[in-house]
Amino acid sequence: MEEIILLSHGNGGESTRRLIEEEILKYFGNDILNQLLDSAIFDIKGRLAFTTDSFVVSPIFFNGGDIGKLSIYGTINDLSVMGAKPLYLSVGLIVEEGLSFEEFRKILLSMKAASEECGIKIITGDTKVVERGKGDKIFINTSGIGIIETSLDWRGRGIEQGDIVIINGGIGEHGLCIMIQRLGIKVGEEVKSDLAPLNSLVLPLLKISNNIKFMRDPTRGGVAGVLNEIAQKYSVEIEIEEEKIPIKPWVRSASEILGIDPLYSANEGKVIIIASRKDEDKIMSFLKNHPLGKDAEIIGEIKGKGNRVYLKTKLGTRRILDPLKRDLLPRIC
Amino acid sequence: MEEIILLSHGNGGESTRRLIEEEILKYFGNDILNQLLDSAIFDIKGRLAFTTDSFVVSPIFFNGGDIGKLSIYGTINDLSVMGAKPLYLSVGLIVEEGLSFEEFRKILLSMKAASEECGIKIITGDTKVVERGKGDKIFINTSGIGIIETSLDWRGRGIEQGDIVIINGGIGEHGLCIMIQRLGIKVGEEVKSDLAPLNSLVLPLLKISNNIKFMRDPTRGGVAGVLNEIAQKYSVEIEIEEEKIPIKPWVRSASEILGIDPLYSANEGKVIIIASRKDEDKIMSFLKNHPLGKDAEIIGEIKGKGNRVYLKTKLGTRRILDPLKRDLLPRIC
Repeated sequence: MEEIILLSHGNGGESTRRLIEEEILKYFGNDILNQLLDSAIFDIKGRLAFTTDSFVVSPIFFNGGDIGKLSIYGTINDLSVMGAKPLYLSVGLIVEEGLSFEEFRKILLSMKAASEECGIKIITGDTKVVERGKGDKIFINTSGIGIIETSLDWRGRGIEQGDIVIINGGIGEHGLCIMIQRLGIKVGEEVKSDLAPLNSLVLPLLKISNNIKFMRDPTRGGVAGVLNEIAQKYSVEIEIEEEKIPIKPWVRSASEILGIDPLYSANEGKVIIIASRKDEDKIMSFLKNHPLGKDAEIIGEIKGKGNRVYLKTKLGTRRILDPLKRDLLPRIC
Repeated sequence: MEEIILLSHGNGGESTRRLIEEEILKYFGNDILNQLLDSAIFDIKGRLAFTTDSFVVSPIFFNGGDIGKLSIYGTINDLSVMGAKPLYLSVGLIVEEGLSFEEFRKILLSMKAASEECGIKIITGDTKVVERGKGDKIFINTSGIGIIETSLDWRGRGIEQGDIVIINGGIGEHGLCIMIQRLGIKVGEEVKSDLAPLNSLVLPLLKISNNIKFMRDPTRGGVAGVLNEIAQKYSVEIEIEEEKIPIKPWVRSASEILGIDPLYSANEGKVIIIASRKDEDKIMSFLKNHPLGKDAEIIGEIKGKGNRVYLKTKLGTRRILDPLKRDLLPRIC
């Protein structure tokens, strides 16, 4: 086969068939996908979660992951934080003419490994090729379907004064890692994205506590972005304490050099959890014993009615933490 | 608001929130989408169909439609030809910095109208912005979920010798229209894409005949492509008659000028139907009375075991109709 992806791989004829059958099915193949029907068919009954995300991250390979792995974990995480067990994914590839098969296969292989790790199946897909200069190597859309067991559905559990705000580990790592790599700065191996699938963390957690009231993965917009969304949506005032926020030393250095607050930097393996204080011990002990939660911290609490987020600084002052207004680098995820 | 889409509209902060709440929700808003959760939630029971498609057509506005309408109908059609009633769609937008809000809104409005026409809801979405020169105005991914009623599930109805091959109207219109417009040739208003949603045609048809054995919309790769897929997948020989194939006069002229066989040109409102001959009258009479089927024709039949497609020409000769091997223009859909 040719060494680079050509426009003919997207024309719907023989080259497309070969690309799909000899490359894509080799990695993703399963009983449903292999049928290559216009739609995948499956039987199901229950409360479903459905989500979509397009991934346009640049560079496509970065410390701690690649666009393929990100596209699987990202959608797994959007399902998981809703309390849904991820079941099925679709994959839509938009490839720029000229992408090498070596890179293409590396991405497919990474997606395959990530899917298997999370126990999900890719059951339907689509591949398009655009001319050189009309895309950027590869964009990946994944849409996901998950199922919510009754015990994992927290809707209606109201957020109220005294509830605690938890994060499962250090903030800002994905965004700052991508920015540093985009600048071509040579870095040590501790500098890497926190990219991780959250299903194994949040789904069991929802089973041990009935008092979790909200979860969201703070991707674009960072922790500050998600907290502001919560404050506005549920009309609550949130206060977080600077001192409690877990930040790795390299993130702190990078954020000072680049002038970017880690609170606004994207995460790809973190979840913000709002829960009743009465389950604090149960939740924190579960998190601390999980590989993705060992650096978990209670970073703040719900102060009452309102619509703002406040940061209590190390100096003891209190300032409003606005949602992101400035431009950060685009294409972090 | 700014007159063009900026990178900041994709940063996950305040501009993104405004873009989503003030623009996207204005057009797509419904009870599920408005919740802006990480995943949309709905209850369901049954046999589901799930499909995905990315749309990268250029130009984004063309005679007979635009990329927005195409992205809705395309996925509606992929669900419908499986016998699934389309219910829910996701929409993933990848916008190139610099797209005008005027064009952006025109596309959203077109998607809204198409969704309403087909009775489906857009329940989850995602918007990314890429730098100028890293995309091409707008790419749209839609993934769709539909439900298959038992009576609409034809799996297991084997294709056999004597079965008829039907198409619901003139071939090659979408592909040739896009190619002509790409070349900047000035054309009359009869030159337009056949873009149409097939749900109102194929779902009732499946209810009136239990002897439909296969349906597919011949998009990329055209009628020749789909027939070759069927021949290979079901190990049958198919023969179609040149004389029976409906082709509009402008398509014939365009195909002669451009040197492109309409049999390989994409369609966006056509369906190939394989059915038992005993329901010929029932099926043809239904099709002929439907606005999307009035030019329907029986174009060929299943000749027995095999794996090839033959074309009986007007001169009475018989030649193999291969799947597409050459390059056509990319980005037809």
